[in-house]
Amino acid sequence: MAINYTEDIQIEKSKTSKIANVDFNNLAFGRVFSDHMLVCDFKNGEWQNPSIVPYQPVTLEPSAKIFHYGQSIFEGMKAYKDSDNNVFLFRPVDNFNRLNISAKRLAMPELPEACFMNGLKELIKLEKDWIPTSEGSSLYIRPFMFATGQGFHASPANAYKFIIACAPSGSYFSGKVKVLIEEKYSRSANGGVGFAKAGGNYAGQFYPTQLANNRGYQQVIWTDDNTHEYIEEAGAMNIFVRINDTLLTVPTSDRILDGITRKSILTIAEAEGIDVEVRKIKVAELIEASENGSLKELFGAGTAAVVSPISGFGFKGKDYELPELENTYGALLKKRITDIQTNKSDDPYGWRVKVC
Amino acid sequence: MAINYTEDIQIEKSKTSKIANVDFNNLAFGRVFSDHMLVCDFKNGEWQNPSIVPYQPVTLEPSAKIFHYGQSIFEGMKAYKDSDNNVFLFRPVDNFNRLNISAKRLAMPELPEACFMNGLKELIKLEKDWIPTSEGSSLYIRPFMFATGQGFHASPANAYKFIIACAPSGSYFSGKVKVLIEEKYSRSANGGVGFAKAGGNYAGQFYPTQLANNRGYQQVIWTDDNTHEYIEEAGAMNIFVRINDTLLTVPTSDRILDGITRKSILTIAEAEGIDVEVRKIKVAELIEASENGSLKELFGAGTAAVVSPISGFGFKGKDYELPELENTYGALLKKRITDIQTNKSDDPYGWRVKVC
Ligand SMILES: Cc1ncc(COP(=O)(O)O)c(C=O)c1O
Ligand SMILES: Cc1ncc(COP(=O)(O)O)c(C=O)c1O
Repeated sequence: MAINYTEDIQIEKSKTSKIANVDFNNLAFGRVFSDHMLVCDFKNGEWQNPSIVPYQPVTLEPSAKIFHYGQSIFEGMKAYKDSDNNVFLFRPVDNFNRLNISAKRLAMPELPEACFMNGLKELIKLEKDWIPTSEGSSLYIRPFMFATGQGFHASPANAYKFIIACAPSGSYFSGKVKVLIEEKYSRSANGGVGFAKAGGNYAGQFYPTQLANNRGYQQVIWTDDNTHEYIEEAGAMNIFVRINDTLLTVPTSDRILDGITRKSILTIAEAEGIDVEVRKIKVAELIEASENGSLKELFGAGTAAVVSPISGFGFKGKDYELPELENTYGALLKKRITDIQTNKSDDPYGWRVKVC
Repeated sequence: MAINYTEDIQIEKSKTSKIANVDFNNLAFGRVFSDHMLVCDFKNGEWQNPSIVPYQPVTLEPSAKIFHYGQSIFEGMKAYKDSDNNVFLFRPVDNFNRLNISAKRLAMPELPEACFMNGLKELIKLEKDWIPTSEGSSLYIRPFMFATGQGFHASPANAYKFIIACAPSGSYFSGKVKVLIEEKYSRSANGGVGFAKAGGNYAGQFYPTQLANNRGYQQVIWTDDNTHEYIEEAGAMNIFVRINDTLLTVPTSDRILDGITRKSILTIAEAEGIDVEVRKIKVAELIEASENGSLKELFGAGTAAVVSPISGFGFKGKDYELPELENTYGALLKKRITDIQTNKSDDPYGWRVKVC
């Protein structure tokens, strides 16, 4: 291999920093961006040397295939600081592996692990001061790859760009959300790309979500596209259900993203002695459990919010309320995960990766 | 409305032309681009004035939502020249309407008709010399829209760019193609975005198509994602089947693109006195018809190739051959359509639109 990704990555530092203009106590999610980004180009059949450059615009030909054929994938991860200013990532190799799973399904080139991991660590070291420390905030990290190769011909591009950018961010959702169980639209097909973090999956969710918003629901619970009888995901999060004292989630499939938060929750819940079941869940089962009082919790799980509690759901014109519990599984699991992420607890699973 | 799209569109002419470097007798499909493009931006809640500028790169923030959430849609159409150098478009308002159908489903802003139609006509007038005249070639026109608004938050962007670019092009396919009927992968879900010309639909097709290519098939016949028992589309074309003397195609749905070539073929076939049926078609029916000799033709239909004849198909490890006919429906219908497009025949349906 011509390129040695374990060598130092070339760094061009930004001449000025934007950091003084940022109010770290009032951060939205993913709206301000740090001073640098990692860039790596794929051309002539191979990945070139990655470099870190000032955060800057990207220039593309109008015929770049990203504009036409949707070859774009991404990841979402975070950097955390402990009280001694040590910096950590959470299961970053899992994000790397998932990026390559997405790449393969979208006929995009897989990235070498050293390019992703070393590039990420060097970037985070450089952007250390951009990691917010207040409760619930973090440095959101966005690795993404898209087709730069040209042509108005529906076939894979011959050139790609991989970028990692960072956004100091506050909480993703504020408060509990009311969700609508979808009966008409769907986010993915059997044999489709739902398991990939492909851009096109998200654009397809916006319109049905807007329709739900107009009816007073903040998110959509996706169901299978064939019968709409089984729940699959909660917006852009995996879904968890607590019935009595059992915690349920649905199995991953080619329609469902294999969430890192989801699998961390499953591991921790078992360690906590919680009964866990991974199986298909019918909408009818949720409704029955709601009606007989056994439905205790419903929450989404994902990197951005960790756990996003759901206060109620709508289905076929009827609304169902979740009870207000004191000690929820959701809150417990969120605390366990964020304690590991922010070095407030032991890390028996080896999930925390120290950057500097 | 503040903006009057019927006013003249501002034109900035390119100082030099690339046209002398183009070999019009050896054109690939969609690989060289003409001198100008139309650009129109959506911001502050409305479409701004369109302008025609030299074909040039586009500069975007790394956080532009096109890179992350797949808000991108496009159209494909052509400009034709007759022997007197008159220039025509074919059913352009149908492309405009479909663009807006796609826009709505992807939560993108709909474009005003005057912006699209006047912009398109002005651009084609200016690029008149780029329209190739040799048999089978044409000026391929690519209107497309994508999200420029920023944010690492999965929600619709607040800014978009609409561009029309042109590529003088030769034939899309050369010769007959062998296709694989897909048993595992699919291009769209019930309640999904398959009926929209959304970028993400195409990226999802590349990998299954590569697998088919590796097995010696040029294209994939998409089937329904639930049972894989019904045929839906042929690659990025609508599908037609001739059984004995009946021409069949499948009904459009939320999984299938409402092709302009498809509906033109249906109209012309009826006028030609051909028996036409629009109904669901089982793979089993194709195989039975192939085995009893009643399967006469199979072809894809779309703007790029008009009609793309299929020489055989594979299914569950077995290959089926189509007969070699003398006078095919495919060839007849293609001739009727291209004769209308290139002003070689009357246009009883009012499909041809003279540009200049
Ligand atoms: C569709 C979808 N499901 C689930 C998740 C949760 O995955 P993770 O926990 O890895 O962030 C995400 C991403 O955040 C997602 O986009
Ligand atoms: C998926 C798909 N089906 C069918 C077609 C044919 O549509 P049209 O005849 O309007 O070009 C296209 C586009 O060309 C397409 O992308």
